[in-house]
Amino acid sequence: MNAILRLTCRDCRGIVAAVTSFILRHNGNIINLDQYTDPAQKMFFMRLEWDLTGFKLPREKIAAALQKFGNVAVSFSDQKKRAAIFVSKYDHCLYDLLLRNKSGELNCDIAAVISNHEDLRYVAETFGQEFYCLPRDEKKQLALLQAKKVDLIILARYMQILSPKFIRAYPQKIINVHHSFLPAFKGAKPYHQAYQRGVKIIGATAHFATEDLDQGPIIQQNVAQISHRDTVDDLIVKGRDLERQVLSAAARYFLNDRLFVCGNRTIIL
Amino acid sequence: MNAILRLTCRDCRGIVAAVTSFILRHNGNIINLDQYTDPAQKMFFMRLEWDLTGFKLPREKIAAALQKFGNVAVSFSDQKKRAAIFVSKYDHCLYDLLLRNKSGELNCDIAAVISNHEDLRYVAETFGQEFYCLPRDEKKQLALLQAKKVDLIILARYMQILSPKFIRAYPQKIINVHHSFLPAFKGAKPYHQAYQRGVKIIGATAHFATEDLDQGPIIQQNVAQISHRDTVDDLIVKGRDLERQVLSAAARYFLNDRLFVCGNRTIIL
Amino acid sequence: MNAILRLTCRDCRGIVAAVTSFILRHNGNIINLDQYTDPAQKMFFMRLEWDLTGFKLPREKIAAALQKFGNVAVSFSDQKKRAAIFVSKYDHCLYDLLLRNKSGELNCDIAAVISNHEDLRYVAETFGQEFYCLPRDEKKQLALLQAKKVDLIILARYMQILSPKFIRAYPQKIINVHHSFLPAFKGAKPYHQAYQRGVKIIGATAHFATEDLDQGPIIQQNVAQISHRDTVDDLIVKGRDLERQVLSAAARYFLNDRLFVCGNRTIIL
Amino acid sequence: MNAILRLTCRDCRGIVAAVTSFILRHNGNIINLDQYTDPAQKMFFMRLEWDLTGFKLPREKIAAALQKFGNVAVSFSDQKKRAAIFVSKYDHCLYDLLLRNKSGELNCDIAAVISNHEDLRYVAETFGQEFYCLPRDEKKQLALLQAKKVDLIILARYMQILSPKFIRAYPQKIINVHHSFLPAFKGAKPYHQAYQRGVKIIGATAHFATEDLDQGPIIQQNVAQISHRDTVDDLIVKGRDLERQVLSAAARYFLNDRLFVCGNRTIIL
Repeated sequence: MNAILRLTCRDCRGIVAAVTSFILRHNGNIINLDQYTDPAQKMFFMRLEWDLTGFKLPREKIAAALQKFGNVAVSFSDQKKRAAIFVSKYDHCLYDLLLRNKSGELNCDIAAVISNHEDLRYVAETFGQEFYCLPRDEKKQLALLQAKKVDLIILARYMQILSPKFIRAYPQKIINVHHSFLPAFKGAKPYHQAYQRGVKIIGATAHFATEDLDQGPIIQQNVAQISHRDTVDDLIVKGRDLERQVLSAAARYFLNDRLFVCGNRTIIL
Repeated sequence: MNAILRLTCRDCRGIVAAVTSFILRHNGNIINLDQYTDPAQKMFFMRLEWDLTGFKLPREKIAAALQKFGNVAVSFSDQKKRAAIFVSKYDHCLYDLLLRNKSGELNCDIAAVISNHEDLRYVAETFGQEFYCLPRDEKKQLALLQAKKVDLIILARYMQILSPKFIRAYPQKIINVHHSFLPAFKGAKPYHQAYQRGVKIIGATAHFATEDLDQGPIIQQNVAQISHRDTVDDLIVKGRDLERQVLSAAARYFLNDRLFVCGNRTIIL
Repeated sequence: MNAILRLTCRDCRGIVAAVTSFILRHNGNIINLDQYTDPAQKMFFMRLEWDLTGFKLPREKIAAALQKFGNVAVSFSDQKKRAAIFVSKYDHCLYDLLLRNKSGELNCDIAAVISNHEDLRYVAETFGQEFYCLPRDEKKQLALLQAKKVDLIILARYMQILSPKFIRAYPQKIINVHHSFLPAFKGAKPYHQAYQRGVKIIGATAHFATEDLDQGPIIQQNVAQISHRDTVDDLIVKGRDLERQVLSAAARYFLNDRLFVCGNRTIIL
Repeated sequence: MNAILRLTCRDCRGIVAAVTSFILRHNGNIINLDQYTDPAQKMFFMRLEWDLTGFKLPREKIAAALQKFGNVAVSFSDQKKRAAIFVSKYDHCLYDLLLRNKSGELNCDIAAVISNHEDLRYVAETFGQEFYCLPRDEKKQLALLQAKKVDLIILARYMQILSPKFIRAYPQKIINVHHSFLPAFKGAKPYHQAYQRGVKIIGATAHFATEDLDQGPIIQQNVAQISHRDTVDDLIVKGRDLERQVLSAAARYFLNDRLFVCGNRTIIL
């Protein structure tokens, strides 16, 4: 079994030596280490994974012991994170997430599928997931998320705008997919916008939801070539593949403790 | 030797049969035919290439005979188009175009390299091309283009904004490269904008220059993945490859008579 | 409603004019026309789609009337083709095809899902499709395909080798997916082979099944970048996305009457 | 000014702590650290870059002091590596390398351009580089490489097979470009092979030259989509772009001390 440390702190001389020596002193064996120092903000980010076999500190004490180094989060490879998926009527991202989780790609527990419509209940239930239809009731939604101890909220083409209050309740824990290569084509109907502009590539973007619509830190983007022959409907079809890819990749980064935020940028270690 | 017809007209029943029968009647052998009907504008676009061996119409009469079908342009595979390249101080697109033309990829005559600086004279002259330093003098530039019988103007990272008068003198004949995936990051310093926004892909766009800056019909776009480790300088380096690719590809489409414009969209046949 | 002509014949002067004039004479309006002449084999391939509104030939007589032009197939936009999907135990391609067909991307009727194992019965049945477990019994399989009037057989990671007799019964109608960029890594365990060789890209290939294993005409290929950090299991996960993409794209080409074979090459019009 | 350590050793507990503590003890500030443990061979690879400002060990003593940790190489950001480029008659990779070095992308000194033909002398000399025509004389070539203190040999479409003796003189220091996505289409005329096979993607591969032709550790690969319309000549044109990209990327990895070899695989840190 492995432990994974996520550390954020001001950049300072000796931080890598200090942390790795700490691990060594307690008899841990480092399996992966990646770090990054943001040159503008002078912030240091590290993801460190080590084998707990023979580690001399009980796991419940590890996080506390590491606090001295900075902002610390520790997780363990035998503990799955808990995700809630928000959907409306489009099913392609929901199916994709459920299938990838079923095949072990995502490595999470789906705590709930939440929607403002009943349409996709059968999809969630086919995969043995709980489905909640809670239209226009953020209070109930938040209560449910709390009760389900949700670590991550995935907006899988959820067609509602979340309130600032909701977003502030889960900072850097809500991942949205927008169906354009942001910052191009913010807002409504991006495929129609793309068609009107006559672009030769379309894209999709997974990003953290913030109070500014479509402006949060970008996690993953992907694009596809299109031609003059592609209608808006063709763009929608091609875009579905992109949406699936970027949303599942972003969720995977989060669930594997690889995602950090620095200002309006993400760092993926 | 082949002839190439570019035809644009209102969509109407029988147009393909009419044109291909015309070719057959004069004993031409069709080698390539591609056509497209724009569903919104009901316009028909056709590129037709045929072998002139045994063709019963003298080549100077072909265009006139085809006028009845619509807006017609005819070119011949033994006649190279004439291109002018505008540059400032960046040399990468200029080198790329000169090298590709030297290797036969572009199939054009470089009529002139025109700049607002002397810096790249040696590059042009190394390749045996005429170089003209004509800063802030569109009148002289236009006179030169006229004298050189230029068919296509390639703005190869030319750092000046052309006047509306200049642009109107060469409608749909000026190809520019912008160093972002338009419509994102219009205007100045797009790589800096991209870095600030924290995107995970950068791009470049070749488009027809129109009076609205960075808003003309898009011809070609390409992108590259970047990561949080890439500095603005890294984006500039990675972007150079994209700029080269999209600009040369767009020029090649034009020079091979494959480019049509329909509203603000390009059609590539 | 539209008709779609697929024509293959020896290349000859006037063939485009002849066919398009035929369409015009019977009052058809051409919507799409694409053609290709193979330079080595001197064969001509054409896909022509026209609007049947007001067409003066009854649809059942169209194919016969066009026979004079060469090898002819005619289909109609209101008639869906019938596909059978063969699977073993991997579910990702099956889910993908069923979901894409459900969303209208594939435009076919799934006549049957056929397997040598019971494992995926629930998947097929969840989507309301008939499932047949017919292990090691090609005779029964062929009888079922005949009874179901199947136009296309999709091998969606079917882990059995088909007999020459079976393949000859459906020439150019069986599409297989191989999990490598062919011709690299033919045969068993291509992801393991790719890992051993230390490649930096992996791929997947959809191709027509022929009697020579993994050697049939290639229809679609796609690749993904990998790094030294990717284990064989990572390659398998990344490869699943590629397999889904190429197999569904290849099926779509077939179902939209866009696929032709010329020697060991495919032509996509 | 920075120092860069490349370390290879058997994987052992505490190696990261030991090395980073060593750096800290001598007052170095780590700027970049990347490491990888090969799971099969149990080998540990590390690239560590630190700021030498205030470092308490003179630079000429650093490598020796680090020897205890394993197989060690140390370089300094103010010392450019020296590369020799081997060419025959194709100029596209040579131009690309010279241009990228001129623009600062490669960060090396071109010690010599060596060829078996005189054809490209003018290219080298235009860029102020020494050119040596040494056909079929590996002895003179090796003497020249020795005299020029060459760190890296780049085979930029060099159409000669190097002897085992030559290759053994520069182990893991000779980078070749092969114009296919290896292991497909080894040997002669890969674009013709690709055309014959009817693939839908072509590729290029940069790899270390070893005694087994086209079998050395792969460093970088890239591909491009092609269609049935592409002739062999089109593949050659499209492939040139790929060859340029992979060869320059591979050289850049080497010159930035990012390349390690583990068995027949490369690790890029």
